[in-house]
Amino acid sequence: MFSKIGIFAKYNGIQSWEVIDKLILYFQEKDKRVLLDQRSCSDFPIDRYGIERQERSELLETIDFAIVVGGDGTFLDVARSIVNYNIPILGINLGRLGFLTDVSPDTMLDTLDEVLADDYQCEERTLLKVVIKKDGETLFEEVAFNDVVLHKNDSPRMIEFETFVDNRFLNSQRSDGLIVSTPTGSTAYSLSAGGPIVDAGLNVISLVSINPHTMSNRPVVVSGDSEVLIRPHANCCSVASIICDGQRSFQFMAHYETIVTRHPNFIKMVHPKNHDHYELLRAKLNWGQKL
Amino acid sequence: MFSKIGIFAKYNGIQSWEVIDKLILYFQEKDKRVLLDQRSCSDFPIDRYGIERQERSELLETIDFAIVVGGDGTFLDVARSIVNYNIPILGINLGRLGFLTDVSPDTMLDTLDEVLADDYQCEERTLLKVVIKKDGETLFEEVAFNDVVLHKNDSPRMIEFETFVDNRFLNSQRSDGLIVSTPTGSTAYSLSAGGPIVDAGLNVISLVSINPHTMSNRPVVVSGDSEVLIRPHANCCSVASIICDGQRSFQFMAHYETIVTRHPNFIKMVHPKNHDHYELLRAKLNWGQKL
Amino acid sequence: MFSKIGIFAKYNGIQSWEVIDKLILYFQEKDKRVLLDQRSCSDFPIDRYGIERQERSELLETIDFAIVVGGDGTFLDVARSIVNYNIPILGINLGRLGFLTDVSPDTMLDTLDEVLADDYQCEERTLLKVVIKKDGETLFEEVAFNDVVLHKNDSPRMIEFETFVDNRFLNSQRSDGLIVSTPTGSTAYSLSAGGPIVDAGLNVISLVSINPHTMSNRPVVVSGDSEVLIRPHANCCSVASIICDGQRSFQFMAHYETIVTRHPNFIKMVHPKNHDHYELLRAKLNWGQKL
Amino acid sequence: MFSKIGIFAKYNGIQSWEVIDKLILYFQEKDKRVLLDQRSCSDFPIDRYGIERQERSELLETIDFAIVVGGDGTFLDVARSIVNYNIPILGINLGRLGFLTDVSPDTMLDTLDEVLADDYQCEERTLLKVVIKKDGETLFEEVAFNDVVLHKNDSPRMIEFETFVDNRFLNSQRSDGLIVSTPTGSTAYSLSAGGPIVDAGLNVISLVSINPHTMSNRPVVVSGDSEVLIRPHANCCSVASIICDGQRSFQFMAHYETIVTRHPNFIKMVHPKNHDHYELLRAKLNWGQKL
Repeated sequence: MFSKIGIFAKYNGIQSWEVIDKLILYFQEKDKRVLLDQRSCSDFPIDRYGIERQERSELLETIDFAIVVGGDGTFLDVARSIVNYNIPILGINLGRLGFLTDVSPDTMLDTLDEVLADDYQCEERTLLKVVIKKDGETLFEEVAFNDVVLHKNDSPRMIEFETFVDNRFLNSQRSDGLIVSTPTGSTAYSLSAGGPIVDAGLNVISLVSINPHTMSNRPVVVSGDSEVLIRPHANCCSVASIICDGQRSFQFMAHYETIVTRHPNFIKMVHPKNHDHYELLRAKLNWGQKL
Repeated sequence: MFSKIGIFAKYNGIQSWEVIDKLILYFQEKDKRVLLDQRSCSDFPIDRYGIERQERSELLETIDFAIVVGGDGTFLDVARSIVNYNIPILGINLGRLGFLTDVSPDTMLDTLDEVLADDYQCEERTLLKVVIKKDGETLFEEVAFNDVVLHKNDSPRMIEFETFVDNRFLNSQRSDGLIVSTPTGSTAYSLSAGGPIVDAGLNVISLVSINPHTMSNRPVVVSGDSEVLIRPHANCCSVASIICDGQRSFQFMAHYETIVTRHPNFIKMVHPKNHDHYELLRAKLNWGQKL
Repeated sequence: MFSKIGIFAKYNGIQSWEVIDKLILYFQEKDKRVLLDQRSCSDFPIDRYGIERQERSELLETIDFAIVVGGDGTFLDVARSIVNYNIPILGINLGRLGFLTDVSPDTMLDTLDEVLADDYQCEERTLLKVVIKKDGETLFEEVAFNDVVLHKNDSPRMIEFETFVDNRFLNSQRSDGLIVSTPTGSTAYSLSAGGPIVDAGLNVISLVSINPHTMSNRPVVVSGDSEVLIRPHANCCSVASIICDGQRSFQFMAHYETIVTRHPNFIKMVHPKNHDHYELLRAKLNWGQKL
Repeated sequence: MFSKIGIFAKYNGIQSWEVIDKLILYFQEKDKRVLLDQRSCSDFPIDRYGIERQERSELLETIDFAIVVGGDGTFLDVARSIVNYNIPILGINLGRLGFLTDVSPDTMLDTLDEVLADDYQCEERTLLKVVIKKDGETLFEEVAFNDVVLHKNDSPRMIEFETFVDNRFLNSQRSDGLIVSTPTGSTAYSLSAGGPIVDAGLNVISLVSINPHTMSNRPVVVSGDSEVLIRPHANCCSVASIICDGQRSFQFMAHYETIVTRHPNFIKMVHPKNHDHYELLRAKLNWGQKL
């Protein structure tokens, strides 16, 4: 049974305050301890409620349940930082249904009743780990919940690179970049670039090229246990970036190698017991309803 | 160690006889018993070699290793009939490298040396099983190695149907049809229709709509353990067919339900020890080589 | 100034009667003569109104303005038959905004006020003419407002054919077929098959292959003054159909040649003076509104 | 009859010198005057041949025929600078057939024989003109032969902007950018991003979004006489670039407006008399040959 609830919100997002207010009052009535994330709720008036605010690293050591109030971007940011803590997360959207923030403020208290009654769905989602190396030395290490993207910088030219899967050469390409995506990320940038929708629970990784010059270059789905290696062309003078979840980026030079693998941990997403992922897809993608 | 070798060929394909001749002489020298498939090699001159020809069902009870000489279509036909026999298959192409018939006549004897020396790759590939039912009664049952395709007949209009995965409603659509594909089939018709390339060993099924009216309808990859149910629109007057591997078809009426699941057995594909599936993809799809 | 108004409706569509009633009363009040199309309004109770019903061929000789009440399918049917008569057409949709029937019943009388005051838009749209020949003899001739489609019949296999533009060889392909589309048809079947949206007034023809086997086969836009010739593979045993606007079809055999050209006449589409085709596109395709 | 020949080459490309040598000797034997472009042939040993080298602006005032030795990138660069001079251009490729440099060094002298005998094809191709304005003031003006591309810079986020055609609002979008392409550019970056192939002589402009967030956003083909206006989101903090032919770029800020129109002039491309643009497409795109 959850007893220490951490609340995370959209950075600088005063539009989330009304929801946070309701959440605090709800949990206080249930005698739960509520803590706010310093990074995302820095000026929320905690004194009114007599609750604490903590730095995220400290907070994550304390709480046993996380609530994200915001959009999918907010959720991605929290997911990456929570990955080592095995704490279930629930996402409440502000305004517009999200792929990750799938609970509406209107129904959130009913959902929380279910959660506290231990009558809810908990789903494990994979993440990716990316390491950038030069001459064996690690220069960058990051986690991604949606995708690790190699993308050309503002150079007008395409970049050239080779891709290997488990040390087997897959292909070389000239393109704007490559999206390495989790099933969760298959409905994000990958979808805009022509990738398939992958059922959220599968242990696979999608490789989707961005505007490849070769027209037979197509999305490839590989095992989630694979190691994906991206090696830039040695003579390539263009530079590129590695971008995690569209939020964290690293300038990528010609001799750097990028290794992407599944992160050993999972994100535990909490949903209402009647949650249906396909219903979410239909709503977000304007798909046809039952005939 | 294999001792009873079955040879299958392109139906009516006299261009395969030279290869069959070499195979028979090779195996006879190794003191192996060679049998020919009656269906596909009906008029090959067996008397010269003193070997037998058997009906396929009988042959499959006898042999412990199968060789297909022909194109991918020949291989698909044999794969569907061999599915219950646990017999490894090797495919030798005539003329043009195939996704399934990946051994060239020029190198086949070297490959067979490796096979007889027990020094080869053996890869398990999934198949699909399709059952069509009306009011609970089974009307059609078939196996597919590449894909089970629902396609409109020669009606000029699109068809309408609903798709369910594990009894959960996925979507309804108006389209020319739906491709339910194995990883093996992901480089066949599914690719023409915009589906992703799926690593051959994954336990997944791809669902790829054919010219869907709704533009947000996109390829979906689900678990290979899923049950896919296709239910035509009740008021739909158009008729359609269910087609397995582009070879076996069944007229599909408005009230029929189609259930596709992974077949419990696998196809055991035999490859040379240095076989690389990505190399095959690069060759068949004209992908870029190493930089 | 229009004085003889022909009304066409959805075949067997009693749901259009209320709109037809309003139209008749409106035009009678303006002292216009109203005639109903026999084919599509065969049992509408004309005696109540004292108006005539005529066979379509006769009707088209009489009227100087045509109103279509129904969906885009109804409009396509009328457009093909009206092509030689230079009569402006206006489309009123029932229920759902159409690409062609773009006037709502709610605003139709205001639009007709504008039309009768000669204060409206009139736009010329191209059509296609298809001729199928064998050994120089014409076997089939038809008009299409959206598209002329070559499509395989219920054979599970792809068809093979060559395409020529102005007697210059464009390409050969193995595919499910080919869509030859007007700009009007670019938002119909062509769009489902990956074709571009073409501005309605351009003098061009789109060639869009249906699930081509070769991945570099892509939509091609050629001049509207081109002659497009489709020549099936001589050894091709599969049969296919030629389908006009998804409504008229002709069985196509191996030795038939299909020639598609722009029809010399145009369809004159009548719109309200504030009509904006891009607004229609945004509404039908769920495109983003102004930021 | 051409008498003053300008030669342009790949910048710093010593691999073009052998071809330039042959061209000079060929033209000197025909008593033509040969001039070299200073920018692209700065250190070619002109003294051996007794020919002149001029700054490009001066050279273009002098010559009546231009030869480009290099790849398509070289041709694009020359095409943009030659646009106001009405000088025919011929492109000779080094190594690999180009869409623009379509004459091989092996056959170039035969082609030049045809050209000097006035027995060749000359084709007019459209270009684009782009103007970037802020508060009515022009900040940037450039010509493009392939395309004018709006592309996000190295920001990980998509950009938001509105597109207008002839002052009519087309749509707003969130994407990586927009390609505004000539028919010539339809086989370049536009093709990688999913645009159609447009016959080279058509007077149209293609608008192809780059990885649009909305899946119903599709390539749009508009009249070549249109004015295309791109207006960035007012509150957009991301920055982007405008890039011409992948070669000239300009940093684009939130309040800048970009106007793209067809340039009033044409590029006159010279081809051998038996040149067939479709043959070039088939060769470059690996399309099927005659059956």
